[in-house]
Amino acid sequence: MSARIPIAVRDRVSDRAKKALDVVAKFVEEDCIPADPVLEAQIGVGDARWEKHPPIVEDLKKKARSLGLWNMFLPKGHYQESPGFTNLEYGLMAEWLGKSRVASEAVNCAAPDTGNMEVLAKYGNEAQKARWLKPLMEGEIRSAFLMTEPQIASSDATNIELSIQRDGDEYVLNGQKWWSSGAGDPRCQIYLVMGKTDPANPNKYKQQSVVLVPAGTQGITIHRMLTVYGYDDAPHGHGHISFDHVRVPASNIVLGEGRGFEIIQGRLGPGRIHHAMRTIGAAERALEWMLMRINDPRKATFGKPLREHGVILEWVAKSRIEIDAARLVVLNAAVKMDEQGPKAALTEIAEAKVLVPQMALTVIDRAVQCFGGAGVSQDTPLANMWAQIRTLRLADGPDEVHLQQMGRNENKRGKEVADKIGAQRDKTERLMRQYRASWAQPGSKIDRSKL
Amino acid sequence: MSARIPIAVRDRVSDRAKKALDVVAKFVEEDCIPADPVLEAQIGVGDARWEKHPPIVEDLKKKARSLGLWNMFLPKGHYQESPGFTNLEYGLMAEWLGKSRVASEAVNCAAPDTGNMEVLAKYGNEAQKARWLKPLMEGEIRSAFLMTEPQIASSDATNIELSIQRDGDEYVLNGQKWWSSGAGDPRCQIYLVMGKTDPANPNKYKQQSVVLVPAGTQGITIHRMLTVYGYDDAPHGHGHISFDHVRVPASNIVLGEGRGFEIIQGRLGPGRIHHAMRTIGAAERALEWMLMRINDPRKATFGKPLREHGVILEWVAKSRIEIDAARLVVLNAAVKMDEQGPKAALTEIAEAKVLVPQMALTVIDRAVQCFGGAGVSQDTPLANMWAQIRTLRLADGPDEVHLQQMGRNENKRGKEVADKIGAQRDKTERLMRQYRASWAQPGSKIDRSKL
Amino acid sequence: MSARIPIAVRDRVSDRAKKALDVVAKFVEEDCIPADPVLEAQIGVGDARWEKHPPIVEDLKKKARSLGLWNMFLPKGHYQESPGFTNLEYGLMAEWLGKSRVASEAVNCAAPDTGNMEVLAKYGNEAQKARWLKPLMEGEIRSAFLMTEPQIASSDATNIELSIQRDGDEYVLNGQKWWSSGAGDPRCQIYLVMGKTDPANPNKYKQQSVVLVPAGTQGITIHRMLTVYGYDDAPHGHGHISFDHVRVPASNIVLGEGRGFEIIQGRLGPGRIHHAMRTIGAAERALEWMLMRINDPRKATFGKPLREHGVILEWVAKSRIEIDAARLVVLNAAVKMDEQGPKAALTEIAEAKVLVPQMALTVIDRAVQCFGGAGVSQDTPLANMWAQIRTLRLADGPDEVHLQQMGRNENKRGKEVADKIGAQRDKTERLMRQYRASWAQPGSKIDRSKL
Amino acid sequence: MSARIPIAVRDRVSDRAKKALDVVAKFVEEDCIPADPVLEAQIGVGDARWEKHPPIVEDLKKKARSLGLWNMFLPKGHYQESPGFTNLEYGLMAEWLGKSRVASEAVNCAAPDTGNMEVLAKYGNEAQKARWLKPLMEGEIRSAFLMTEPQIASSDATNIELSIQRDGDEYVLNGQKWWSSGAGDPRCQIYLVMGKTDPANPNKYKQQSVVLVPAGTQGITIHRMLTVYGYDDAPHGHGHISFDHVRVPASNIVLGEGRGFEIIQGRLGPGRIHHAMRTIGAAERALEWMLMRINDPRKATFGKPLREHGVILEWVAKSRIEIDAARLVVLNAAVKMDEQGPKAALTEIAEAKVLVPQMALTVIDRAVQCFGGAGVSQDTPLANMWAQIRTLRLADGPDEVHLQQMGRNENKRGKEVADKIGAQRDKTERLMRQYRASWAQPGSKIDRSKL
Repeated sequence: MSARIPIAVRDRVSDRAKKALDVVAKFVEEDCIPADPVLEAQIGVGDARWEKHPPIVEDLKKKARSLGLWNMFLPKGHYQESPGFTNLEYGLMAEWLGKSRVASEAVNCAAPDTGNMEVLAKYGNEAQKARWLKPLMEGEIRSAFLMTEPQIASSDATNIELSIQRDGDEYVLNGQKWWSSGAGDPRCQIYLVMGKTDPANPNKYKQQSVVLVPAGTQGITIHRMLTVYGYDDAPHGHGHISFDHVRVPASNIVLGEGRGFEIIQGRLGPGRIHHAMRTIGAAERALEWMLMRINDPRKATFGKPLREHGVILEWVAKSRIEIDAARLVVLNAAVKMDEQGPKAALTEIAEAKVLVPQMALTVIDRAVQCFGGAGVSQDTPLANMWAQIRTLRLADGPDEVHLQQMGRNENKRGKEVADKIGAQRDKTERLMRQYRASWAQPGSKIDRSKL
Repeated sequence: MSARIPIAVRDRVSDRAKKALDVVAKFVEEDCIPADPVLEAQIGVGDARWEKHPPIVEDLKKKARSLGLWNMFLPKGHYQESPGFTNLEYGLMAEWLGKSRVASEAVNCAAPDTGNMEVLAKYGNEAQKARWLKPLMEGEIRSAFLMTEPQIASSDATNIELSIQRDGDEYVLNGQKWWSSGAGDPRCQIYLVMGKTDPANPNKYKQQSVVLVPAGTQGITIHRMLTVYGYDDAPHGHGHISFDHVRVPASNIVLGEGRGFEIIQGRLGPGRIHHAMRTIGAAERALEWMLMRINDPRKATFGKPLREHGVILEWVAKSRIEIDAARLVVLNAAVKMDEQGPKAALTEIAEAKVLVPQMALTVIDRAVQCFGGAGVSQDTPLANMWAQIRTLRLADGPDEVHLQQMGRNENKRGKEVADKIGAQRDKTERLMRQYRASWAQPGSKIDRSKL
Repeated sequence: MSARIPIAVRDRVSDRAKKALDVVAKFVEEDCIPADPVLEAQIGVGDARWEKHPPIVEDLKKKARSLGLWNMFLPKGHYQESPGFTNLEYGLMAEWLGKSRVASEAVNCAAPDTGNMEVLAKYGNEAQKARWLKPLMEGEIRSAFLMTEPQIASSDATNIELSIQRDGDEYVLNGQKWWSSGAGDPRCQIYLVMGKTDPANPNKYKQQSVVLVPAGTQGITIHRMLTVYGYDDAPHGHGHISFDHVRVPASNIVLGEGRGFEIIQGRLGPGRIHHAMRTIGAAERALEWMLMRINDPRKATFGKPLREHGVILEWVAKSRIEIDAARLVVLNAAVKMDEQGPKAALTEIAEAKVLVPQMALTVIDRAVQCFGGAGVSQDTPLANMWAQIRTLRLADGPDEVHLQQMGRNENKRGKEVADKIGAQRDKTERLMRQYRASWAQPGSKIDRSKL
Repeated sequence: MSARIPIAVRDRVSDRAKKALDVVAKFVEEDCIPADPVLEAQIGVGDARWEKHPPIVEDLKKKARSLGLWNMFLPKGHYQESPGFTNLEYGLMAEWLGKSRVASEAVNCAAPDTGNMEVLAKYGNEAQKARWLKPLMEGEIRSAFLMTEPQIASSDATNIELSIQRDGDEYVLNGQKWWSSGAGDPRCQIYLVMGKTDPANPNKYKQQSVVLVPAGTQGITIHRMLTVYGYDDAPHGHGHISFDHVRVPASNIVLGEGRGFEIIQGRLGPGRIHHAMRTIGAAERALEWMLMRINDPRKATFGKPLREHGVILEWVAKSRIEIDAARLVVLNAAVKMDEQGPKAALTEIAEAKVLVPQMALTVIDRAVQCFGGAGVSQDTPLANMWAQIRTLRLADGPDEVHLQQMGRNENKRGKEVADKIGAQRDKTERLMRQYRASWAQPGSKIDRSKL
C-alpha cells in the first residue's frame, strides 16, 4: 500500500499512482491470492493441463479492467496506450503483483508478454503492431520469447545458433529452443524467435535477428515442457521446441537483420525491475506466512510458541532488513531508469538483478524451515515460490556472468584510484618532511650486527 | 569404492566389507543409476502412479541378492539374519546407495523399512516378527512409520496426540498422521503408528506407545500424498492419513504401553547415519555432474570452458572440502556407535544430522547453477536430489531443535571451564608476584588531576 | 562527491549541501587522508602518546573552518549555531569523513563530541551550555560519554549501576566505567556520566541520571586504556576509569534526576546514522585500495594480474552491490529522521545499525585478503579500519540485541497477517464452491481397503 | 587429553603418545596458559621489547624437558633425535600447544624453528647440522625462514627474486624480505634465505636456492617489524629486512643450487598440520571462554543469562560441530601423511589448510561477540588469537591459490566422470527399449498445429 512506500522515493510517486497502488494491493490481497488455488484446481491434471484456460483468470481480468488496472507496465511516454506510470510507480505495483500467481496476468502485466509488447511497441512496424501488439494489449492472446537453446551455453548469448535463412520472400528457421516460457499456454499465438541470419558476420553482435513466428506454423514441434523442481508451471510452461524448415514471410523480421542484440538489450532493463519487484513481493508474502506460523498457538514447541525462540526472531529481523535493503536497491534503479534511461542505469539494474533473488530465496527458505513439512508441500505457497525464484538466478544470465561484468566495470576505476592513492602517499611524504615527523616503526632500532 | 575410504577409518573396514563395497559401487553405477529413469517411466502418470510396482525394481532386487547384497543395514550382532557389517561398513555402502534413487530398495535397505525392521527385530515379539519382519526382510512387503501429525508441532514429539485407547482385547485409534513416508506404495502393508495410550501420564515421555496397524484396516483413509517442492515421490509417497475408530488386536502393541519414546529413540541413531551417508553420496554425484558440465566443450562461455572460470573452480574445491569433512564426521559417528553404542554417540550423530544436509544442499545448488536451466529441470537428477535432501533439515526434528539441544549439552561444561579459567587467572597473579612482573597497560600513567 | 549521490535521494539535497559535499570530499581526499600517517607519527610512542595533541590536527581545523566546514553534524533547526544541513545532507558528508581518521575531528564532527554536543544543546541549561557546549562547539576542548561498566552486561543499559548520590548541594559518584572513548585525549575536559540516582525506583527506566563531571575532579582515576585488536587508538583512547567519592555540584545534573534513559535515547538516533555513513566511507576506501592492488602490475600471480582472476572480480562486484545497498538503507533512514523525527525512524535506523558494520567488515576483509601480508600490517589502512569497525557490532548494543528487538517489532504484525491469510483461505473455499472446482491432490484416489 | 581423541583415530595413538598427550595437556593448562600474561609483562614496552628474552620462557623450557616434552614435532623415524611420535600423535599434542602463546616454544616445537629444523635434518650436511641444527634442537638459538618479498606477489613463489650470486667461494645476496617471522627475537641467529641463484633458468622451478645466513652478517639491515592488526608480536616479530651485498661462504647453500622449491615443498606438509592443529586448539580455547562468559551470573541481560538465549546456544552448537569436523579433516591428513607420505596427502593437507583458519576465525569471532567490549580488548585472549589466525589465510599462500589448485586437481576427474555418466545414459536408453518404457514428459502431447 502507498503508506509503505520507502520514504526516500515516496514523493516521486504521483497521487494517481498512490491511488492505483492501493487498488492493486487490495485487488491482489482480496481477489488474486484467494484465486490462486482455484486457478490450480481449474488447470486440472495430466495432459489436460496444457489445454485449459482457467475461467477464473478471465473473471479477474474483467474485474481488473473495471478497476482501471491494465497494462500498467507500459512505461509513461513510451507508447500511447500507456496508462502513464513511471518505472518506479509500476515497480511498486509489481511488488504486490508478485505476491500472487495470477495477479500479473489478471492486470495484463505478465511476463513474457510485457517484454514482448515493449519490443513490438518500440521496434515493430505498423502491420506487426496491428497483428500482434493489439491483441496482446487487449489480453486476447499470449506470446513467448524464444532465445535459449539446449545444446549450447546460452548464458553467452552470442552462442545462440538457430538458423534463420532468407529464401526469397521468406525466412526459413531451423534449430531448437527451450525454456520458451509461456509456450505451453493454448492462447500463446506468437513467438519472438532469436537466431542467426548472418552467422559469418565478423562482429558477433551483428549475427542475430528476431523474427515473429506464429505458434501454429508448420515445422514447429513442441516436444515437452521443462519442469522447475518438479513443477510444470502449466498452463504457462517452459517449452522445448524444434524448428524444422519453418517458413515465415520476410516482413516478419523485427527492426531488421542483425539487430537481435539491440532488441534483447532494450527488452531487459524494465523486465529486470519488474522481476525484482515481484520477487520482493514474494519475499514479503513468505515473511507474512512465517509470522502466521510462529504465532500459531497449536505450533508451540518445548513449552513456548515459535515467536519466543530467539533464533526465529532473528530470522524475522534479518528478513525484514534484507527485504528492505533489496527494495531500496530496485527502486533506486527504477528512479534512475525513469530519469536517465536504462543505459545509464545499467549498474543499478544489475545490482538488483543479482541481489534480489538471493535475498528472496533466503527469506523463503527460512519460512519453509519454520513450517516444517508443510513448508515443502502443497499446503503453503512457499515451496513453489522458492522454485520459481530459483530460476531467476539463471534466467537472463546467471548471477556469475553479471558479477563478472560488474566487477570489470567497477575495475575501470582502477587506474584513477591508484593514481589518487599514489598522490595521497606523495603528499604524506611532503607533510612528513614539512612537519619534521618520522614514522615510528616497531623494531626499527634493532641492531643485530653485534651478534 | 574401497580405495576411496578415508584413511582414518580404512583399517577398521574388513576385507569382506571392502569387497562388498566394491560390489555395491559397481552395482549402483552400472545397474541402479541407469535404471532410475526407467523406474520413473514405469511409474507412469496420474493416479496410476500410486498403483504401480515398477518391474525393473524386482529385477534389480534379484540381481542384488545374487550379488550377495541384501539387508546390509542390519547391524552386526544385532540380529541373526544380519550379514554382519558394522555401522561404519554399511555407512560406506550407504554412500553409494545414495547416488541412485532405486539402489536402496534394490538391496532391501530402503527407509523407512530399515528403521521399522530394526524396531521389529529389537522390540517385536515372535509373532510380530513372523508376521511382519520376515516378509520385510525378504523384500516382499513394505512398511511405514506414522508419527508426524498435521495439527501440532511434531518437532517436539511429546505433542503427538493420536489417541490409542484400550477397549477389551483391542486398541482403538483415532487421529491424523501425515508425512507417512512410503504409505503411497501399493506394497506397503504395515504401519507402525505412534500415539498416546496414556495422555494423562504426568511423565510426558510415558504417554506414547507404538502399535502395528495393517494398511487395509477399516477406518483408515489415505487422503492424499504430500508433495516435496513439485515432486510427489510416487509410488513411495508421503501420506496424509486419518484414523477413525481403527481397531487392532491388543497384541499388536510393540514392547508395551508407554514405551513409544524408547522405541523411536532406539530407531533413530543408525537411521541418521544411513541418511547422512546417502546424502553424501548424493553430493558426490552432484559434484560429478558438475564436473561433467564444466568440461563440456559445447558449453563454453566468453571464450573459455566453464572449468577455466576461477569462480567455478573455487566451487569445485569448496565442494570437495565440504564433502570430505562431512563424510569424516559421519564415519567417526559410525565408529563411535559401533564401539560404544548409539547412546555414547549422541553428540557425534547429532553433528552429522545437522552438518550433512546443509553441506549437500550447498554442493547440489552449485551444480544446479553450473547447469543453468537444465539444473532445475527433469534433465539432470539435481533438482530432485535437492528437494529430497531439503526435507532432511526438517525430518526427525528441524536443525534448530538439534542445535539447541547440542548447545545445551556443550554448555554443561560451563562451570568446569569457568573454574579452570579462574584457576589459571589466579595462577597468573601468583606468577606475576613471583617474577615481580607488572602489566604494561597503555595509558596507565595518565594523570589528569593536573587539569 | 555530489555526482555520486544515489539518485533516489539526490533531489532532496540542496545546492548548498551539494557544494559543501564537494568541498568535504576534496578536503578529505587531498588534505585529511594524506595527513593521517602524519598524525600517527606526531602522536609518537609509549606513554607520551596520551599527552600529545598532534599539531597537524589544529592546522587542519583551521583549514576546515576557512572552507566553511564546521559542526555540520548539528541538525538543521535544532540549534541556532547549526550550519543548517539535514541528516541526509550531513550523512552524505559523513561518508567522506569516514574515509580518513582525522577528518571528523578536523571539521569538529567527531564522536563522542557530536552526541555530547547534541545532549547539551537539547537538554543542557544555559550555564551548562556556556561552560561546556561553547568550547566544544569551538573545538577547544573534547568530551567523553561514560556509560559502559566492566562488571555488568552493559548491552542491557538497565544494568548500569555507578552510584550517583545526592549529598547536600552535591552529587557523590562511586563506581567504575570503561570504554570511555575519548577519555585518553589530554584535551578531554568533560565527562557525561550515566549512573543510578534512584536504584530502588520500581520503574527501571527511571533509575538513571546523567551528570557532568570535569575530567580533573578529585577521586577520578584513569586506570588504563583498552586496546582494540592491538590498537590503543591514542590519543583518543578507550578509558577504564574509576570514581571514588567524586563530588560535583548538584547543578551539574542534566535535565533532571531519573532522566538518563531519555537522554541516551535522544542521543543515539543521529549518531547511528553518522557512524553508519562513516563506515560506508571506510568500505569505499577499502574497495579503492583493493582496486589499486588488483591492478598493480608488480603483483601479478600465475601469469595474470589479480584483476583478471574471476574470484577477485566477483569480490569487487559483490562489494559494489553490498556497499550501495547499505548506503541506500542508511540514507532512507536519514530521510525518515529528517521528515518524521527519530522515533518514527527507529526501525530504519536499527536496520542501518545492524547491516552496515557487517557489510563493511566483509568488504574490508576481502581487501585485506587481496593485499596478503600488507593487508594485516601498518602498510595499509585496512587492518586498523577493520578493527575500528568491528567494535560497531558491539557499541550501542550488540547486533543480537537489536535483532531481537526488531524481530519482536516485526512480529507485532503477527495477528494481523494471520487474520488476513485466514480470510484469504476462507475466500478460496468460497471460490472453490462457486466455481465447482476441486483440489487435485496426488494420491487422493488411493484405496487400500482392498488389501 | 587422550580421552578426547576422536574415536576414528584413537587406536592409532600409542599408549606412550597418550601418556605424553596427557602430560602436554596438563602442562599447557596449568603452566603455560597462566604464564602467557607474565611473558607479555616481561617483554615490556617500547624498543626494549625486541631485546628481551623473558625469563619465564626458560623456566618453562626446563620444566618441559623434565616432563619429557621436547622436540615432539620431529617425525618418527625421520631423525635420530626424534622422540618418535607420528604426525597424528604430535598433531594431537599441537592442538593443546595452540591454546597457549608460550607453549610451543616451551617444548621447542615453535614455528618457524620446527620447519627449519626439519630442513636442516633432512637436507643439511653434517657441518650445517653441527653448527645450526644442534643448538636449535637444544633450544639455545632461534631461526627464521626468509621467503616473502614486499615488492612482488609472493603468493606465487616463482616471483621471489632476491639475488644470490656466486662470487668465488662466496654467495652475495642482494634484495629485500619481509614477513620474516621470528627475526625480531634477540636469540634468532640464523636465517634460511630463499632467492634466485639462476634467474635465467628456463625452468622457473629451478631458479631458486636456499642459503644459510647468520643473523649478524654485514650488509643485513632490519628495517622494522610488521604489525598484525595492532600487534607487534614481540619479541618474535615479523621482520622487514634488506640484504646489501651480504656475503656467506658457498658451503652455506642447502642441498645445492636450484633446489629451493624442493626444500620449501618438503618443509610445508608437516608445518601445515601443526598450524592447523594449533589453530583448532585456539578455537577450543575461544569456545571455553565463550562458555565461561555465557554462564557468568553478572552478565545476564534482559532477565536471563546469555546461555539461555537461543541464538547464543546455536553459536555454541555450531562451534562444536565446526571444530569437530575440522579436527577430523586435519587428523585424517596426518594419518595419510604418516602412512603414505606428504606427497600422497597433498589434497588432504590442502583441505586442512583452507578449512581450519576460516573455521577458527568464525568461532573466535562468536566468542568476541559474546564478550562485548572485553572481547576486542587486552582482557581476553580472543582478539589476539583472531589476529594471529587471520594471517593463516594468507601465509603459505592465500586460500584462493589453494582453492584454485584444488579445483584443478579435482577437475582432473572431469573426463572420467563425463564418460561414466555418458555410459549410464546409454544404458538407460537400452533399458528403456528393453522394458518398452517411455519417458513421460509433461506437455509432450501438445499439438498447436490446429491453431
